[in-house]
Amino acid sequence: MNFAAIVHDIAEALRPQAGQQGHVATYIPALARVPADRFGIALHTVDGIEAGAGDCDMAFSIQSVSKVFSLTMSLQAIGDALWQRVGREPSGNPFNSLVQLESEHGKPRNPFINAGAIVVADVLLGLGRTSADLVAMLSDLCGEAVDIDEEVAASEAETGFRNRALANFMKSFGGIENDIAAVLDLYFRQCSIRMNCRQLARAAGYLCSDGAHPLSSRGGARPALVNERLTRRVNALMLTCGTYDMAGEFAYRIGLPCKSGVGGGIIAVVPDRLTLAVWSPALDESGNSWLGMKALEMFVARTGLSVF
Amino acid sequence: MNFAAIVHDIAEALRPQAGQQGHVATYIPALARVPADRFGIALHTVDGIEAGAGDCDMAFSIQSVSKVFSLTMSLQAIGDALWQRVGREPSGNPFNSLVQLESEHGKPRNPFINAGAIVVADVLLGLGRTSADLVAMLSDLCGEAVDIDEEVAASEAETGFRNRALANFMKSFGGIENDIAAVLDLYFRQCSIRMNCRQLARAAGYLCSDGAHPLSSRGGARPALVNERLTRRVNALMLTCGTYDMAGEFAYRIGLPCKSGVGGGIIAVVPDRLTLAVWSPALDESGNSWLGMKALEMFVARTGLSVF
Amino acid sequence: MNFAAIVHDIAEALRPQAGQQGHVATYIPALARVPADRFGIALHTVDGIEAGAGDCDMAFSIQSVSKVFSLTMSLQAIGDALWQRVGREPSGNPFNSLVQLESEHGKPRNPFINAGAIVVADVLLGLGRTSADLVAMLSDLCGEAVDIDEEVAASEAETGFRNRALANFMKSFGGIENDIAAVLDLYFRQCSIRMNCRQLARAAGYLCSDGAHPLSSRGGARPALVNERLTRRVNALMLTCGTYDMAGEFAYRIGLPCKSGVGGGIIAVVPDRLTLAVWSPALDESGNSWLGMKALEMFVARTGLSVF
Amino acid sequence: MNFAAIVHDIAEALRPQAGQQGHVATYIPALARVPADRFGIALHTVDGIEAGAGDCDMAFSIQSVSKVFSLTMSLQAIGDALWQRVGREPSGNPFNSLVQLESEHGKPRNPFINAGAIVVADVLLGLGRTSADLVAMLSDLCGEAVDIDEEVAASEAETGFRNRALANFMKSFGGIENDIAAVLDLYFRQCSIRMNCRQLARAAGYLCSDGAHPLSSRGGARPALVNERLTRRVNALMLTCGTYDMAGEFAYRIGLPCKSGVGGGIIAVVPDRLTLAVWSPALDESGNSWLGMKALEMFVARTGLSVF
Repeated sequence: MNFAAIVHDIAEALRPQAGQQGHVATYIPALARVPADRFGIALHTVDGIEAGAGDCDMAFSIQSVSKVFSLTMSLQAIGDALWQRVGREPSGNPFNSLVQLESEHGKPRNPFINAGAIVVADVLLGLGRTSADLVAMLSDLCGEAVDIDEEVAASEAETGFRNRALANFMKSFGGIENDIAAVLDLYFRQCSIRMNCRQLARAAGYLCSDGAHPLSSRGGARPALVNERLTRRVNALMLTCGTYDMAGEFAYRIGLPCKSGVGGGIIAVVPDRLTLAVWSPALDESGNSWLGMKALEMFVARTGLSVF
Repeated sequence: MNFAAIVHDIAEALRPQAGQQGHVATYIPALARVPADRFGIALHTVDGIEAGAGDCDMAFSIQSVSKVFSLTMSLQAIGDALWQRVGREPSGNPFNSLVQLESEHGKPRNPFINAGAIVVADVLLGLGRTSADLVAMLSDLCGEAVDIDEEVAASEAETGFRNRALANFMKSFGGIENDIAAVLDLYFRQCSIRMNCRQLARAAGYLCSDGAHPLSSRGGARPALVNERLTRRVNALMLTCGTYDMAGEFAYRIGLPCKSGVGGGIIAVVPDRLTLAVWSPALDESGNSWLGMKALEMFVARTGLSVF
Repeated sequence: MNFAAIVHDIAEALRPQAGQQGHVATYIPALARVPADRFGIALHTVDGIEAGAGDCDMAFSIQSVSKVFSLTMSLQAIGDALWQRVGREPSGNPFNSLVQLESEHGKPRNPFINAGAIVVADVLLGLGRTSADLVAMLSDLCGEAVDIDEEVAASEAETGFRNRALANFMKSFGGIENDIAAVLDLYFRQCSIRMNCRQLARAAGYLCSDGAHPLSSRGGARPALVNERLTRRVNALMLTCGTYDMAGEFAYRIGLPCKSGVGGGIIAVVPDRLTLAVWSPALDESGNSWLGMKALEMFVARTGLSVF
Repeated sequence: MNFAAIVHDIAEALRPQAGQQGHVATYIPALARVPADRFGIALHTVDGIEAGAGDCDMAFSIQSVSKVFSLTMSLQAIGDALWQRVGREPSGNPFNSLVQLESEHGKPRNPFINAGAIVVADVLLGLGRTSADLVAMLSDLCGEAVDIDEEVAASEAETGFRNRALANFMKSFGGIENDIAAVLDLYFRQCSIRMNCRQLARAAGYLCSDGAHPLSSRGGARPALVNERLTRRVNALMLTCGTYDMAGEFAYRIGLPCKSGVGGGIIAVVPDRLTLAVWSPALDESGNSWLGMKALEMFVARTGLSVF
């Protein structure tokens, strides 16, 4: 397929609609300032082919998209032992809900709701990992230096009462091992990493290639990120839990493993074929990028690529 | 691949374990009487190749597996209009829970929890369909006459207080249009259809062939069941919602769209390749066939076939 | 105190406001037809003094007020053994909620929510009691013939999907012993009893006199309804659970054991002193009579009578 | 009545049972060290008569009993405006539950569950009040110097993850105005006040005397704590919400406004007559003093004093 033409056409069709529906996240000033009328799209194939269009070079706050990479780093280190600390079922509740945690004694449903991602951060901290290690991992994956938006990180920390509630609540059940302030610092910093669509599509490349480093097609021996088995399982988690309480809707309309963030970014995986990153900051009511979701739908309709 | 050898090997390996773990459903006598030590497996490929092993010719109560076929029949008739009556998100709750229904004003989360399947039955009834139409559809799909186990149907009706509660509860919100007794009669009868693994794998064949009739490879013009788009969407719903509150676990460990029933049957779909049916009556705590789940895991490990 | 003057003054002050706020229950035609601009009040003291004002002679549907009398009849028969079937804690949820029932395995929180009253009806039915026995009990208590509004009873039965859901749900947990249709028939008929304020204030008279028959002050040996201990306990249940999810508000603003019904009636008890009945059909959002609640507040402010 | 004899008899009967059932709270070392075999009882009448028996002079951690006094202090200052910040309905859930807070947008059900008491502490802090003011208020009420157990306060702060979760959760809804650390410091310190039964019965004396200072019967002009109306309302809240999810049970078996704490203390009010304080550190499953509850039941049975 002519992927360059496909992403060009999608950007052409959708960019004029950017910001016409939905609302940019406003809970911290640095996110609220992002212009609503942006739209970017990029893809990276298993063969190393890349294509981008629209604002695909403009960096944004990856927010919850980071949860895929922190999950991967924890699976690299401890594998399936992670599941003693966090479940892998859809929650059926909003991303920041405490209700289920109470009836399930502080064990989060999955690593993509906030509570679960905080547990993953606690696991990483217990292994001596820091936000700098996540930045290094992402820089290595995309072959470009990425960084943390310190203003966003500071704002997240200042206003993160709900996440602080989640962490303290889990700690009251014994579900958090390290100091809460340190765990949340790691979590808030990972959410504040900024990247553009090109970088994100490439960094996620291991998810469409059974775990192989996305730059390995450029030659030079690069170790796999995780093995094929765990790669498939990250994809499974993205499909069932990656878009909060819209996972069923994404599976139905798009049919690809996806992970979204309130910065307006979404990554999607076509196993054995390619990874996609789309970005448009205005969110629908569910907290997913309104235009990003449309772009993915258009991509699937045009290419017929879907896991189903 | 040599599918005959694969299913033979799986049956060889697993049949001796049948009944060693889990428990046969006991809520009605006719189900409780089924011997726990049974195991059957069958598959049907998009090319019409079929293979079976173990007790693949022994009929069992398909129970909730029927929900895939009633959903398909309702989508044939009214398409996406169905989603005004039922959602398509995982529930995060047991299959017979009333909790979510209350906070969501009587609209079920998806068509595979009992409440949702009862709404689908109400839709079919409103269209003049009966359980005989479902029997006819299944008979046509597998090219063999299937029937309803009248003893099971009578027992379901006699003991179905929870389903009667669900139906009355939804009716109190205006979510059921027809007479409750008639709706439940259709629902109980569809759950009481009996088929064997060979028949089920074949009947579900349209799910791996973009909706084409499973017997169309035998020649003769047979109309498609549903179009490609809706076929993919039934698969998406099976993957995210087909195994109750174990959908995440199935996606993680097996990675295929599946639908299970308390009779111990499970159907699974490898899109564009094949459909599988496995059966072993002893259920794990989640209500899914313990050995059936192991068989699917073994199949995926052996063949590498998974959507992720 | 000059109770005749007090109730006269309250009726004078409030009757002009009848129907200005709130809404008459409309779920069945016979209730919806009741004119909103009615207001009645009556009281009965432990010495047999009675007073009434406003529409105190106009009969209305007592609805959930009947739960006090069915509870009393079941305590007469089996005493504290009742609490093996139903709890005695406030529910913190609406009167017809199913949520708590699910997490508490089908045992209702208290005998005044619908689920609990249905269990009480099941207990009475198991003892051979009928709605005619409740009618006879109430007729005996107030010394006048009361009856069932058959139109209301028929409508309740026709539209009672939520109550049918509650009964089936409890039956699925083993919480209902008799045939559901028979239990609900008793329940719907007890809710359809019609009485006026004078009759209700007098019939409830045993609650302010340690269980003595309200007409015993007229001479003639009449056995006590229940003993002092159980009488106090019915009062305790009324105060903590008698007005659904407004029990705290009633305790705070009125400070008397009360039981309300969607027909617009409320009975209140001043232990060792008197019983009150008020009626005005327009309900506030919580389902309690808007003007009835104001009348009780005015009575307490004027007399200083409150249990606190 | 001969109250000295009554409390003597109760202590005689119950003290030998102290520690035979239930468990001393162990979540912090200072509480866990308290010997289980203690039992104290004291009362204070509206006329200034006092009586005590058993370990009535041994100080203990008043814990949640302090919520009555902080509520009183906030009502003194802002009256019914308090109810814009906290509700007054029973919760039907455990004292430290977060579930209801989520569906009710961060407004606690009542001032006696932890979340509600934390809001009251926030109100007091906003008015410039400190834990020293609460200590001064209690010292003034009982005419003896009471103090804070600094070891308990430090332990509460160290282990109070659930309360920190509650405070952060409410803050995320805008329900807490001040700095969380300062609010929790006040809350943890008020819970760590230590008093004995004699002091507590006397300090609570205003609740049985329409708000009059408990020492006013000793002569000398002392201003009322709160007016009659608010006093009755504190009593109403104690009866409906003072013993967590056992309020219905307390109302049923004891029939008096009560407030309990996990230190094993309970205060009870007979309006217009007397206040009682009982203490025994072993708690039943609901977190109320097992023997304290028995003592109150015995007192009511012996004296016939109950609000119903």
